[in-house]
Amino acid sequence: MTSFPITNLNRVRRLPERGQYDAATVYEILDAALVGHVGFIVEGRPFVIPTLIARSGDELLLHGATSSRLLRHLEQGNEACVAVTHLDGLVLARSVFHHSVNYRSAVVFGRGRLLEGNTQRLAALETFTEKLLPGRWADARRPNDVELKATAVIAIRIESASAKIRTGAPKDDEEDYALPVWAGILPLMTHYSEPQPDGPLPEHISLPDYLREFTTEPSS
Amino acid sequence: MTSFPITNLNRVRRLPERGQYDAATVYEILDAALVGHVGFIVEGRPFVIPTLIARSGDELLLHGATSSRLLRHLEQGNEACVAVTHLDGLVLARSVFHHSVNYRSAVVFGRGRLLEGNTQRLAALETFTEKLLPGRWADARRPNDVELKATAVIAIRIESASAKIRTGAPKDDEEDYALPVWAGILPLMTHYSEPQPDGPLPEHISLPDYLREFTTEPSS
Repeated sequence: MTSFPITNLNRVRRLPERGQYDAATVYEILDAALVGHVGFIVEGRPFVIPTLIARSGDELLLHGATSSRLLRHLEQGNEACVAVTHLDGLVLARSVFHHSVNYRSAVVFGRGRLLEGNTQRLAALETFTEKLLPGRWADARRPNDVELKATAVIAIRIESASAKIRTGAPKDDEEDYALPVWAGILPLMTHYSEPQPDGPLPEHISLPDYLREFTTEPSS
Repeated sequence: MTSFPITNLNRVRRLPERGQYDAATVYEILDAALVGHVGFIVEGRPFVIPTLIARSGDELLLHGATSSRLLRHLEQGNEACVAVTHLDGLVLARSVFHHSVNYRSAVVFGRGRLLEGNTQRLAALETFTEKLLPGRWADARRPNDVELKATAVIAIRIESASAKIRTGAPKDDEEDYALPVWAGILPLMTHYSEPQPDGPLPEHISLPDYLREFTTEPSS
């Protein structure tokens, strides 16, 4: 799928010029996010729970303990809506009314299904681990059978989705450009800082190359 | 209220030792977040939409255009669940199974009501503006009657809430501490970078003090 059809579900209603529906844009925003906010309904009430997400093709993966209420709810095929947001800066206009933020957000809709079998589950956990930190899967101790049994992985096929993006400078009313008010963008950055070794770590275990390279790259 | 009663709505089920219910903790996590993810139900389906939030006492404020579907839905008194999450670092354990993230999240439950009258709406917009950037309300052009009329503000009284927090080092299984695997924390930081003046800004309008001070303070 190159673009998600625009329906009542995913149509960006407010400021539709900021809406985007191509899968590449939606996927890029999802992939840049570690945490997604998962909306679901229990007994007629809305719930939102933050959890780590990873994408595999046209599916969004969630994982956790088999006892997780969220995962047990979704494994029954119930509907979910998952939203991720990257805040890129404050937009400081001359008028309060035109203040805004620069952001990239994606909202996806789909139903959960439980991944069966250790092979599928292991592949999903590799996807999660490599998303967190590329190179980590080859280094850390892999899950054993007991751990695999205790882990549930839910796949949500992305049935519908949209992205919403604001970039660039403030837009003021024509007559406000003459006001003596500073206007512009205050960029918001996220980055990793110096890795902190665990207390009991022996001195001869030095920082692995994949971790050193990862932390010196700019992150989004 | 000093603590939210633990009910079926807000009880932290997974890893209950990470759950916190005192209002001060919940409010601190909410106040450190610019964006909340608002869950609501339309025609039996869950939706999650990211939007700017601000807190005033025991109420969470949302604002936007009067035509916003989210706000129109909430002004009818419908239920909402709002979640915010701060990601503080990657927790790199010796085993894949014990990999985690450090985070502070809050989930609140309540029903919307529309703020009536310009006085209440102006006060809410001041709260939003000053949360974005302290000092900005006194400097930028305030909303006029037309702008106020076009702006809806929804207040959600926080009926129930919980916080969930993970901090500190990885926790590995006893036998894994002998593995030759680097373990520790990779801290994730968010900060503002150099303000970027809007193109048409005249040179004599220099960076205001409140903005210079704001950007040199550490943010969470």
